[in-house]
Amino acid sequence: MTATETLSLAEIETLAFDALVKAGTSEENARPLAVATAMTEADGVASHGLAYIPIYAQHVECGKVDGQAKPVVDQPRPAVVTVDAATGFAHSAIDLGFEKLIPLAKEMGVAVLAVNNSYNCGVLGVHTQRLAQAGLMGIGFTNAPASIAPSGGAKPVVGTNPFSISAPDAEGNAALLIDQSASTIAKSEVMKHAREGQPVPEGWVLDANGQPTTDPEAGLKGSMVPSGGYKGVGIALTVELMAAAMTGATLGSVASPFSGTAGGPPKTGQFFIAIDPEATSGGLFQEKLAALVASFRDQDGARLPGDGRQTARVRAATDGVAVNAALLEKVRALL
Amino acid sequence: MTATETLSLAEIETLAFDALVKAGTSEENARPLAVATAMTEADGVASHGLAYIPIYAQHVECGKVDGQAKPVVDQPRPAVVTVDAATGFAHSAIDLGFEKLIPLAKEMGVAVLAVNNSYNCGVLGVHTQRLAQAGLMGIGFTNAPASIAPSGGAKPVVGTNPFSISAPDAEGNAALLIDQSASTIAKSEVMKHAREGQPVPEGWVLDANGQPTTDPEAGLKGSMVPSGGYKGVGIALTVELMAAAMTGATLGSVASPFSGTAGGPPKTGQFFIAIDPEATSGGLFQEKLAALVASFRDQDGARLPGDGRQTARVRAATDGVAVNAALLEKVRALL
Repeated sequence: MTATETLSLAEIETLAFDALVKAGTSEENARPLAVATAMTEADGVASHGLAYIPIYAQHVECGKVDGQAKPVVDQPRPAVVTVDAATGFAHSAIDLGFEKLIPLAKEMGVAVLAVNNSYNCGVLGVHTQRLAQAGLMGIGFTNAPASIAPSGGAKPVVGTNPFSISAPDAEGNAALLIDQSASTIAKSEVMKHAREGQPVPEGWVLDANGQPTTDPEAGLKGSMVPSGGYKGVGIALTVELMAAAMTGATLGSVASPFSGTAGGPPKTGQFFIAIDPEATSGGLFQEKLAALVASFRDQDGARLPGDGRQTARVRAATDGVAVNAALLEKVRALL
Repeated sequence: MTATETLSLAEIETLAFDALVKAGTSEENARPLAVATAMTEADGVASHGLAYIPIYAQHVECGKVDGQAKPVVDQPRPAVVTVDAATGFAHSAIDLGFEKLIPLAKEMGVAVLAVNNSYNCGVLGVHTQRLAQAGLMGIGFTNAPASIAPSGGAKPVVGTNPFSISAPDAEGNAALLIDQSASTIAKSEVMKHAREGQPVPEGWVLDANGQPTTDPEAGLKGSMVPSGGYKGVGIALTVELMAAAMTGATLGSVASPFSGTAGGPPKTGQFFIAIDPEATSGGLFQEKLAALVASFRDQDGARLPGDGRQTARVRAATDGVAVNAALLEKVRALL
């Protein structure tokens, strides 16, 4: 059994904030990332919560991300917000953008936010969820260094590129949350198997010649299997179009890796679309959404995307989160 | 060998137009559908071209679609266009909406179009492609009667719901076009196997208990397999949110079937997002898009989504399209 220590969400946020500031991050940049870290732990996505704080701290120190960056916000058209993240953290850039995006989407009915010169934004659904909490349909895209090859090819050209959509209920919550990458399995799972010297199941990765393999090392030198074959490539390409081409960010095929200290800032991008459902549906949105959610929930055993995270979130708000003790020691050592 | 007759695109459009008008469709409603039919044949998607004209004619005659409908356009917010298709054809509703959407997206940087009380819109990519031809990034969603069950459930709640994205090149063409449904295979393929009494490969359909089957009839009474498992359900649900909940249209779980004459108008919906890439990318879009397209094309054998349709389109413009002679006879019999 793994030793754990239970922390409140406030304690998680403070710990993340202090560690980031100690590493050289400005308070303005550390706060949004610390908030997102606590939200991610609350949602039960431990792989992307406190576990990333030592990596973030290292990346500030080696210059892969500029902890002191001052993101630059612009509004080149009435319904378009852009943010140059200036090779800083994605989170503060997105936060600054959302400050303009949310009221604009309500006024115009729809608005978009394009972020470039950015970095790994952590769990994408944490951001779209905030748009839902503001009463908007939130759609998000973020690109990553290439690890998926085209159908018929073997060389990766697009990342495992997730998209996310979050729908608002009438009480200021996310009624449902979809947040899924374009690959069969997360790349972090393959890296974990490689670290532990374990083979991966067939269907996760391909070798550098595009052939199936169960060797995680060969897979990391090759490519990730797209979910649903060519349709997964279609999703990854959709996300690359939105998060990189539409923002002017660096394509996954030439971006530096998110992991390790080499290569300088990845300068990847994020794109968000925020839409006021009441405006587009003639006031019918909540009724339709409730019926759609019910059609899933009314079936025994049927899973509605986002329910797992929501259950974890409700529990975490009162009970806190059990954090791996070894990880906690590693994070506290940064202070 | 199947007997065919080669028709020019103009001949296909005229034939479709005349058959639709003869069935009781107004000229205003018949023209956009006839144009889309010719575009669909040009793109080589024969399953959704002239083959649908006898079905459309029958649906006008039985009242599943109102051939004389007058779609109503509104602009409830500065960047939102809505169209009530009034149980008429989707195509004329979308056309009317695009007339407002396209200039609005250029002015605002982004605009959306929500269509409700609508009908099957044929090949979704035909519509997003027109946004790309207008210099905009075009994203489209359309919902359909339910045929995909939730993960862990067996009763269908969402349709095979496609999404499409089309990116503009600098010369007024679609540089690439993604248009894919949420199921492993198109439902029409299962119906074709059922008609021919042939078993379907495993992985296409599930029976009414959610169990794998190779019997197409059992599959049509059960559900379609989502592409990539729960991630395919996530895509279908994303599309349902956008095309139905966001438009106030009928959910797939309660919509009348697109096929056959029973059940009255399906009243499903479409949703389009049009974005000016120059506004969001600071003028970098074409450079990034070209590099992304090249990363696919530079690999021997790699397929870029949309290339097949584009090749067919270029050929059809000069050589026309070889149409199945038996189908042609059936369509001409409508005149």
